[in-house]
Amino acid sequence: MTSRLSQQIQFVLEIDQLKQILRQTRLTNGSRRENSAEHSWHIALMAPLLFEYAPPGADLLTVVKMLLIHDLVEIDAGDTFCYDTAANLDKAEREQQAAERIFGLLPPDQQSELRLLWAEFEAQDSPSARFANDLDRLQPILLNQQNQGGTWKANQITQAQVLRRVEPIQTGAPDLWPYLQQILQDAVAAGYLLPDPASPATASFCASSTRSRY
Amino acid sequence: MTSRLSQQIQFVLEIDQLKQILRQTRLTNGSRRENSAEHSWHIALMAPLLFEYAPPGADLLTVVKMLLIHDLVEIDAGDTFCYDTAANLDKAEREQQAAERIFGLLPPDQQSELRLLWAEFEAQDSPSARFANDLDRLQPILLNQQNQGGTWKANQITQAQVLRRVEPIQTGAPDLWPYLQQILQDAVAAGYLLPDPASPATASFCASSTRSRY
Repeated sequence: MTSRLSQQIQFVLEIDQLKQILRQTRLTNGSRRENSAEHSWHIALMAPLLFEYAPPGADLLTVVKMLLIHDLVEIDAGDTFCYDTAANLDKAEREQQAAERIFGLLPPDQQSELRLLWAEFEAQDSPSARFANDLDRLQPILLNQQNQGGTWKANQITQAQVLRRVEPIQTGAPDLWPYLQQILQDAVAAGYLLPDPASPATASFCASSTRSRY
Repeated sequence: MTSRLSQQIQFVLEIDQLKQILRQTRLTNGSRRENSAEHSWHIALMAPLLFEYAPPGADLLTVVKMLLIHDLVEIDAGDTFCYDTAANLDKAEREQQAAERIFGLLPPDQQSELRLLWAEFEAQDSPSARFANDLDRLQPILLNQQNQGGTWKANQITQAQVLRRVEPIQTGAPDLWPYLQQILQDAVAAGYLLPDPASPATASFCASSTRSRY
């Protein structure tokens, strides 16, 4: 085996661990929490299905690749819940270290490509990255709506907090926005989501955290 | 919500069930069986990582989309183990019915695109489909090697059976072939895989089944 193939296979084996990183969100039937590998598959498949709602300039293959790798840093850094203020203090640092080690297993050219892709996703500074982030925020909303408010009820989340979290979709994928608003109104009416506004501090904190979960 | 968006979201919610379809293969650490959503994520991410070994003419986005959807029929049809001869008798029919219902949830243009993609994957009649199938066959080999022969030992699988299963890789991705042969020799030496040849009937049956698992 060449050294290059050996590095690639080592990376493929290493990322198997993402299947053991649990997120807060539960499956649509509420039976258990989903893991980050399943979540990554779900949103990577949502990308081609919903690509007609992406902003101009987005590239589908770039979006799909971003979504497939966007959570890999959690293998070392864990899944940081949006409302865990203590864990969020050092989240960026933990994830940078994780990116260094995990992407560092690859040959230099692929290491560099994946690090750039992940940084682009985190910075949300391209149409592809914005659409990828939109899907990452939309999917747990759909799951929480189906499983009768799972994570929202368990953590007493308010409509204002969720709205602030999904706000980028209003400009990034405006055709999805009326539908999202309707989901949240229905969720409040059904008692899945609290109608009370969040405090400004909590709300703005969550909005700034690209990879938090609910 | 438009009827089109409503159909797309219904499909996104429906496919959440793939997270509950268990495969025979266990995770690299052997702790539990992986499910088909995790497996689909893993091989979809292997596609860009190993694309330099793909046959000429393969298209990366096509390969990734195929791998993201290739197991969706299992939501209705279940995961059929390669060596379960009874279940394999009506596998194709069960999966066709599943494809009809599941892809049928989508708007007509997307329904048609995904059905064609799935049919192309199953038929292995294009460079993209052949490479997608190579990855689908390679991944469980890597997992079984790591978890000390999990599915192989549990089902007394022989080296000849595995070799016949992965044979398409010899022509489809020849640069991976010496590495694969080495894995299997090591697995036999370690007692993870039986050295005895399979009976011709079993071996050819498994080779012809594109979506079986081990």
